[in-house]
Amino acid sequence: MVPACGVITLTSDFSLHDSYVGTMKGVILRIFPEARLVDITHHISPQDVLEASLVLESGYRYFPPGTVHLVVVDPGVGGARRPILVAGEQHYFVGPDNGTFTRVLDSDPQALVIDIQETRFLLPSISDTFHGRDIFSPVAAYLARGVAPEEFGPPLTQPRRLSLPVPRIWGDQIRGEVIHIDSFGNIVSNISREQFEGAVGRRRFKIVINGKTIDRLHRSYEEQERGLMLALFGSSNLLELAVAEGRAERRVGAGKGDTVLVQIDEGDAEP
Amino acid sequence: MVPACGVITLTSDFSLHDSYVGTMKGVILRIFPEARLVDITHHISPQDVLEASLVLESGYRYFPPGTVHLVVVDPGVGGARRPILVAGEQHYFVGPDNGTFTRVLDSDPQALVIDIQETRFLLPSISDTFHGRDIFSPVAAYLARGVAPEEFGPPLTQPRRLSLPVPRIWGDQIRGEVIHIDSFGNIVSNISREQFEGAVGRRRFKIVINGKTIDRLHRSYEEQERGLMLALFGSSNLLELAVAEGRAERRVGAGKGDTVLVQIDEGDAEP
Amino acid sequence: MVPACGVITLTSDFSLHDSYVGTMKGVILRIFPEARLVDITHHISPQDVLEASLVLESGYRYFPPGTVHLVVVDPGVGGARRPILVAGEQHYFVGPDNGTFTRVLDSDPQALVIDIQETRFLLPSISDTFHGRDIFSPVAAYLARGVAPEEFGPPLTQPRRLSLPVPRIWGDQIRGEVIHIDSFGNIVSNISREQFEGAVGRRRFKIVINGKTIDRLHRSYEEQERGLMLALFGSSNLLELAVAEGRAERRVGAGKGDTVLVQIDEGDAEP
Repeated sequence: MVPACGVITLTSDFSLHDSYVGTMKGVILRIFPEARLVDITHHISPQDVLEASLVLESGYRYFPPGTVHLVVVDPGVGGARRPILVAGEQHYFVGPDNGTFTRVLDSDPQALVIDIQETRFLLPSISDTFHGRDIFSPVAAYLARGVAPEEFGPPLTQPRRLSLPVPRIWGDQIRGEVIHIDSFGNIVSNISREQFEGAVGRRRFKIVINGKTIDRLHRSYEEQERGLMLALFGSSNLLELAVAEGRAERRVGAGKGDTVLVQIDEGDAEP
Repeated sequence: MVPACGVITLTSDFSLHDSYVGTMKGVILRIFPEARLVDITHHISPQDVLEASLVLESGYRYFPPGTVHLVVVDPGVGGARRPILVAGEQHYFVGPDNGTFTRVLDSDPQALVIDIQETRFLLPSISDTFHGRDIFSPVAAYLARGVAPEEFGPPLTQPRRLSLPVPRIWGDQIRGEVIHIDSFGNIVSNISREQFEGAVGRRRFKIVINGKTIDRLHRSYEEQERGLMLALFGSSNLLELAVAEGRAERRVGAGKGDTVLVQIDEGDAEP
Repeated sequence: MVPACGVITLTSDFSLHDSYVGTMKGVILRIFPEARLVDITHHISPQDVLEASLVLESGYRYFPPGTVHLVVVDPGVGGARRPILVAGEQHYFVGPDNGTFTRVLDSDPQALVIDIQETRFLLPSISDTFHGRDIFSPVAAYLARGVAPEEFGPPLTQPRRLSLPVPRIWGDQIRGEVIHIDSFGNIVSNISREQFEGAVGRRRFKIVINGKTIDRLHRSYEEQERGLMLALFGSSNLLELAVAEGRAERRVGAGKGDTVLVQIDEGDAEP
């Protein structure tokens, strides 16, 4: 296991309008004053565990090995779901056992999952509504300070997993879907560069979303004329629809879950 | 007095859209490069000193003793109101003398209040519109660096206090009010668990807000069916109305100041 | 050249809704774990390089000498525009060569501009859509860690400059414009205190914006009665229109680019 490096990231659906996020940081700093705290985002859509999972996936690998990622999107707080920690992919993850860490578990079959039970690593009084403060923050702080994962409790062998939306490829079609609208209004699909290139090769294609069609790929936003639509592979290597210096989401009227279809033609693309 | 621990929290109504908050942090880091800075929130409603006071109250105790809490919601900037610092409850507080620290002063009768007068701890040039930058940030930095409170000026014996909304209990009623809508749309009242349990005991009750009635308490959000209303004690032990995975504020059409009535029945609650 | 002090500020149009900003911080911490990271704002209007330039200008001087300011508002990402760093005014600046640093270059004719070319200071794989992560963050981290500017590439002699809106003064008029609406709804013009006082002197004047007229200056917001309009010099010493405890922007219906006219009368102002 990679040793903890002292960095803790925070991701939640708490927004920054209340004291929730600040309170979690206070709890961490009481336990581990040298923690270096980095917000990923606190604007996950309320209770949207899938979104949290995808946002985490797009960012965590860029942090130093041994970073602790605290992710609290927790509609089941106060109920039967377990609090867990995951050690995998050279990082640590702390949060509710509700599928948030599905991608990490998929990428690292050796990942260790711990059912957090040791109360000495929690706040003395545990509320029924804010485990981010009472359970997950103190655990993240102790982990980042160097306590070994095994000390927090026994292994959990069947962590919950989300069924993540996967594009289907058959014959001359790739059928994917919109998984994210970013803050620029770019429409991010779940079709990876690898899948696209594997299926399309050198052939011609049409990308169709909500009746709009695009038949070529650009490399960057600025290659397209201002105000026109384009398709490209974004910073996570996923197929993305955009409008140069505009908002594709509004142009297309797209939302999460909408189908993104790649229709492959027989003929070769012109060089 | 607890020694300063090097942590400074920031709370304001500046939002994060301008450079105001960043500028305050720059001022702090020039004076005390080792400061560990934590935002509580910068989304206090503009000029809402009461809200700042309540948000501060809900979070500050979770920080390490000796933390400096910088709170700038300052409609009187440039006028006659004094800049103050408070040392109490094992924490330090810096901001305008407009009632922001009422709760701290109520909890700690021994709290020391200082009228900030020593110009050597301020920026050389003081604007009439941004004391957060010119007065409060440098004072917070020097405090966190270890300068004793008494060095900033003489004691202030009559700091301003807000009249905080307190629930009234008489006969078979508790009459409280909404003091906060959190970012999940949960409706937070000023009725504490202690007050509720003291008045209601084992009897039946009805909680009434804007014509909607709830006659039992839940322990956590997830105990209630998705989309239905519930009442519980939130993470600050205040009576809260919520909708499971929804927004109670919209359901009820509630806003700050609305009455929350607890009507107590004669008969005992069923076990 | 002032040595780097280890502080890095971040400014962008990425908002805080995605993992973009967090990812940049991860990249920085991998290279320079001791970096002290401060957000200025990530709410620059999308692709608005001028706004980024003005926000940067209003804040950077308050940071310690040797701070690295990372500013990524980058409509040209993936195209021909160069990535640059600037060493000037005792600070360092990193971002695309699109005019963001015009004001710094104007203030410091000795400023050194470097065309970033050394790939050993970049991420191994450079995307076409997110140079904030792949180029600017690693360069900022190495700079803050102490690598000399000259090591990143050759000097660039003709960096791009924006034509910044400058007020015109003639006869009895100053014709400026709105350059910023802050989060309180205050209307900030490009007319400086110096320009105003130089042109108006002790004479009477009228400030006109969208048909509304103000004929005196206040010193602070709280000098004016609640709800009434006022004009003052804000925290950057720019002429600003405000409503006491209200939103001037709504009252006046003003937006960026609107004319702010100062009409100077012949007669002296009454004392």
